[in-house]
This record gives sequence, C-alpha cells and structure tokens, in this order.
Amino acid sequence: MELFELYREISVKNEKKILLIVLDGIGDLPLKEDKTPLEAAKTPNLDILAREASLGLHDPVARGITPGSGPGHLALFGYDPLKYDVGRGVLSALGLGMDLMPEDVAARGNFATIDEQGNVLDRRAGRIPTELNKKLIGKLGTNIKEIDGVKIFLKTEAEHRFARVLRGEGLGGAVSDTDPQVTGKSPLVPTALNKGSEKTAEIVKNFIEKAGQILADEHPANFILLRGFDRLPLIPPVSEIFKLKAGAIASYPMYRGVAKLVGMEILGIEGEGEMLDEKVELLKTKFPEYDYIFFHIKKTDSYGEDGNFDAKVHHIEEFDNVLPEILSISPDVLVITGDHSTPVPLKNHSWHPVPVLLKSEFTRPDETTRFTEKEALKGSLGRFKGTELMPQLMAHALKFKKFGA
Amino acid sequence: MELFELYREISVKNEKKILLIVLDGIGDLPLKEDKTPLEAAKTPNLDILAREASLGLHDPVARGITPGSGPGHLALFGYDPLKYDVGRGVLSALGLGMDLMPEDVAARGNFATIDEQGNVLDRRAGRIPTELNKKLIGKLGTNIKEIDGVKIFLKTEAEHRFARVLRGEGLGGAVSDTDPQVTGKSPLVPTALNKGSEKTAEIVKNFIEKAGQILADEHPANFILLRGFDRLPLIPPVSEIFKLKAGAIASYPMYRGVAKLVGMEILGIEGEGEMLDEKVELLKTKFPEYDYIFFHIKKTDSYGEDGNFDAKVHHIEEFDNVLPEILSISPDVLVITGDHSTPVPLKNHSWHPVPVLLKSEFTRPDETTRFTEKEALKGSLGRFKGTELMPQLMAHALKFKKFGA
Repeated sequence: MELFELYREISVKNEKKILLIVLDGIGDLPLKEDKTPLEAAKTPNLDILAREASLGLHDPVARGITPGSGPGHLALFGYDPLKYDVGRGVLSALGLGMDLMPEDVAARGNFATIDEQGNVLDRRAGRIPTELNKKLIGKLGTNIKEIDGVKIFLKTEAEHRFARVLRGEGLGGAVSDTDPQVTGKSPLVPTALNKGSEKTAEIVKNFIEKAGQILADEHPANFILLRGFDRLPLIPPVSEIFKLKAGAIASYPMYRGVAKLVGMEILGIEGEGEMLDEKVELLKTKFPEYDYIFFHIKKTDSYGEDGNFDAKVHHIEEFDNVLPEILSISPDVLVITGDHSTPVPLKNHSWHPVPVLLKSEFTRPDETTRFTEKEALKGSLGRFKGTELMPQLMAHALKFKKFGA
Repeated sequence: MELFELYREISVKNEKKILLIVLDGIGDLPLKEDKTPLEAAKTPNLDILAREASLGLHDPVARGITPGSGPGHLALFGYDPLKYDVGRGVLSALGLGMDLMPEDVAARGNFATIDEQGNVLDRRAGRIPTELNKKLIGKLGTNIKEIDGVKIFLKTEAEHRFARVLRGEGLGGAVSDTDPQVTGKSPLVPTALNKGSEKTAEIVKNFIEKAGQILADEHPANFILLRGFDRLPLIPPVSEIFKLKAGAIASYPMYRGVAKLVGMEILGIEGEGEMLDEKVELLKTKFPEYDYIFFHIKKTDSYGEDGNFDAKVHHIEEFDNVLPEILSISPDVLVITGDHSTPVPLKNHSWHPVPVLLKSEFTRPDETTRFTEKEALKGSLGRFKGTELMPQLMAHALKFKKFGA
C-alpha cells in the first residue's frame, strides 16, 4: 500500500485544530555579519516559541530540487508534487476564483507591448494599473466570447496579469507558451505538444490574433502573451485523505489557487497585497470553524527575490510582532515553516532545506533557542521531505489511528 | 513523474564546474587510540576545507547495505544502483576499453590452479605476473576465436585477472559463476539462470573445457574461473540526464568502467596503480574542458581491505598533501567523499555511512572543523542516500532549473 493511501485509511475527525503558517521563501543563506535574515531579525516571540517547540528542516520536494510555489505548497499539504504536477495557469485561475471544470484548459496571460514589426518591447506592458487591466479584459471579453464553439473566460489578476480559461469539447492542455521570455523577439506561436492538444493550439492562436486586433490601438498594452497551459489535475481533497475541514488565508491568488486545488475553502481575502493585520483578524474569527487553517505570508519571499536583506529581516520582525495575536487562538498543533528557501544572495527560490517549527502538547523537546537555519539543524525533528510534514501534524493532532493491530 | 526523469527536465548547461573526488572506501571505524584513519591522519589542508564547507554523511545504496564498487559509484553519479544493476564483468570489460555491444555478454575471469582431481588449489594461480597473463590470453585467443558462431574476446586486466566478452545471437546474460570461492573443491558448472541464457551457458561450458585443454601444461595457471556474467544495461548518459560533459580520472580499470557506463569520457590514464601526481597533473590540464570531473583515489580502499591502519592514514596524508594542487583549479562545486566505507577492522567494504564534504558559493555553513566521520555527524548536509548527492551538486552549480511555477 502507498503511504498516501494509508493516510486515507487511518485519518479520523476530532476536535483538535491545526494551524500551518507558511512564511514564503523563509530559508536563506548568511549575508550580513554572517547572519541569515532569520538570524539577524529580532524575534522575541518566535524565540520563546522555538524553546518550547521542536525544530527541524524539510526538503520541500527532494534534495537539490528548487520548487516553484505550486510544488512547494502541495508538498506542505501532504501531496507528492511529482505525482500531482500542476500548471501555473490552473493555479492562477483557481486563485482568482474561476470555477474550473475537469475538461477546461487554463493559462496565465500578460498584457504586453509590441512594436510595429511585431517584436516584444515590454513583456509586462509597463506593469499597467490593475484598473486598466480590468478595462481591457472587459473589452476583450465583450468582443471574444467563443471561438469554434469553445467558450473563453478571462479574469484580471493584477497589474499586467490575467487568467484565461477555455471550455469546450476535445481540448488538451499540452500547448507551448507564447511568451518569448525576452524582449526584441516576436511572440512564439502556440504549438500542440501532443495530438490531443491540436484543437487547443488552433483556438489559442486564433484567440491571440483576435486579441491583437482588438488591442491594436491601445498603449502600452497592445498585445497579450500566454503561458502555463494546463488542465485541472485530479487530486483527492484533504477532506477525503485527511478528513479535514480546511481553510486557507492567503492574500495572493496563486496560493489561494493551490489551496483550492486540494479542497480547502478560501476564506475572505481577495486581490493581492500582504494585509497582515486583516489576515490575522480573519484567522481569529474563522479558526473555531475549521480543523486546519493554512495561513500564508508572501513578502518574505518577495524580499528574498528582490535581494533585499533588510526588508526580509523587517518583515520577519513584523510577523514576530503579530505572533502573540496569532497564538491567542491556541492551536492544538502549530507549524511555522516555508514552502522553499529564497536566499537573498540568490534572488531566487532555492533548493536549500527550510526550517520547520512544530509545537503541540506532544512534541519532544530539543535544545533549540531560536527559529533559524542553524538552530533547526539541531532540532529533534531532524531533516525530512516536505510531504512528511502533514502526517506529523495529523499525528500530533491525534487525527491518525494506529496502523495495524 | 520519477525524480530521475525530473532531473532530465530541469537540468541545464552552464559554465560552472563540478569536481567529485572519491576516496575509495574512506569511511572507517575507530581503531588506534580510538581514532579512525581520517581522525588519526594529519590533514591541515582538509581541515581548512572542512571549516569552509558543509559536511554530512551518505548511505551509498541504503542503510545496512554494503555496496560493491559498481553500485557505490553509480549512486554517486546519481543512478539508482537497484534500478541499474550492473555485473562486474561488464564493468571490467568497459574499464579495459573493450567495446561492448548491447547484446554482448561479459564476464570476469581468473587464471587458477587445479590439481589432478580437478579441484581448485589456488583461485588466483599465485597471482601470476601480468606479463604471463598476457601470454596466456594470447594463447587462448589464438586457439579459441569462436564457438558455435559466437565470437569470444579476451583481455588481460592484471595479475591473474582478465575480462571475457561473448558476441553472437541469442545470448542471455544470466549465467552462474564457476568460481567455487573456496579451494579444495572443483569449479562449478556454469548454469543458465533463465531460459534466455541457456545458449550462453552451453558456450561458456564449452569454452572452459577448451581453455582447460589449452592450459593443461601451464603452471600454475592451468585453468580458468569465470564470474559476474552480464550484459550491458541500458543507462541514459550523464550528458542526457544532467547535460554534463563529464570526464573520469581513475587509474584502475573498474572505475573507468563504471564511469564509461554512464557516458563519462575516460581521460588519459591507463593500466592500474595509484599514480596520484600524474592524475593531479591530468586534472589540471583537462578541467577547463569539462563540466564535471570524477577523480578517483583507490588505495584508501586497498589499505582498508588489507587491514593496514597506518598505510590508510598515510595515504590520506598523501592526498592531503596534493589537495592544494587540486584546489588550484578552483572548482565551483567541490565534493570529497567515498563510494563506501572500508573499515580496517573489517578488512572489507561495509555498510557504514560515508563522510561527505561539499563546498560551493552557496553552502550553508556548519560548525565542522575536520573531515572525519564524527564531525560529519554535525554537518549541515545531514545524512542522505548516495543517489541524492548528484542533485545537490547540480543545484549548487545552478544547473537545475526551478521545478514548477
């Protein structure tokens, strides 16, 4: 039997409540004064917690693998990202609250600027305001409702980004990106990557041409680029595998998307932006109604990607500041970790293992005194794979029955 | 998707260079003054490196498994030795530069001494000189070119050892060894271990009889023993899975064989013997042309197998001595480890985990001060499976793209 199938068999419902806090991209490398952001930050509240909790490190997907946000979060939710490989288009569409049907094909879109020769001048159309995006999406939506019997749905994400869903018969999800990834080149022609996706590629090509005509007189957003085509994967929900009524508090669409994919309810927050205080308030209100809440903090990752050490430190301190408010809800099992590392020196996601803090009535104490990469090395949780976190939470919440007699 | 398939998808070529140094059988147990050879050796250069690098331990195949040189090295190269099970005959033939075709059946041979009753007196014919081996191989080759349409190729390895390749139609590789492993018994009859290998067993039987007749008047090498029958496994090369132009510097045929098996180029060194200085010179010359070089040092294992503590210590010190020369090529990613442990008290390969040292621009520091079994326990790499080394090297060389969005 596969371990994942065992979870389904041994999981039970009870009154215990789990809180998973994801500090996106939290793991780092030493930089200033040989300290990582977690080491440099003043975190009196986290420090107390680190003394009381068990620490460890997880490799989100596997050693050496740098995970995207999708695989990183799927792993934290207990789902093997190598088995459940999800396209970003699907995650975005879900995150924006678009109802995806099993046969739909989703993709992410950018408004872009092209010159008279048709070469890309700006892949993000100068990051147009979200309001203009909405106006243009309205214009496209009014003019292109369907092509050859395939319905087209569009929704603004933010700035230059939108999501696009195709609904119709005989659509495959394997179509190549049209974003050339560099400026000065023409957009790529969408190409079917397998036989079953030829119709999709034709429709997409047609759609892009029409969109180009409609946007021709706009400036700077006179073209669109599409990428991350995919269909909804079949994923058994957390309610089935873990018997959890699970909710997600995340203020960026991507993370709401991946939470929805595994059957979590998306709680209250829309749009994009950190909104830390609002999220904490929402958590305090909603926690009593759920068995498990996934609470996502984004900016630790953003500042890592910006290469901004001080801002990452500051944001960790801001989190530490609201921690007592968060702890006031007294979760039976609390985890603080990241979905991957985003070291400031790399300005990118990385493969480095991610610190984990786990606290419950049943944690084995260790001698860790701070929530840092180095202290986590000494922690009683040791080093484990991302997918192994969820079964540990279930165990600490006494939500897993004994296996065998 | 399997992890190994993911490697193929996410690996990219870049300018970064990886150096893997394998101190064969380096791991050990405490013996003199409660120290292991690594602890007893004076290694000022390794000590400096240990302070700058990350340390850890790897289990070449899995906990409790004592690997042969083939599985140990395959694991270090990122290939699951349980999936790619390679016979020693294949490794020897490849190491001797024999061109193996996919349908060929290889085996290792020993010249041996048998008495008048046909019982084995000496399984190694008193370790005859390599020159005599060559003469006898010439004699056998002249007299036996093919049997029933199956061509037979022989090549001297060293002392009593040779490799033998069968080429023809309908040959399977599953044939039992003829070496009885003890003296005083008659050689075993080669037996087909599956239906497809019956023809092979017949030919081998026939070949051994003919060889016995031809060698009848020789002394002490009047018979041959064969073992390790196998065909070439289908292994995707490192150029395909990891996009690496890889070279191997190894002064023993076996290790050149396993490197060739995964598509590494064999650089310059022939024959057998440590040749440490020559290998270092070759490394300095060739490193600029390759993405990855595997640099093998043999004697640490040999002295372990001899049970010679002092010689193992001394050889470690000799390696430490040439280390600055090696480091002068400034690899972007440097690893020093072994393919398995060969503890002096055991005089044999063992299952004990093997110390690893990894240094790159992106290693997370730890508090290790020497490259020893005990210090490695405290290292930030933790303990991992042999096959997990390669993805970590790829990551540190920034040769792995992000997985998923």
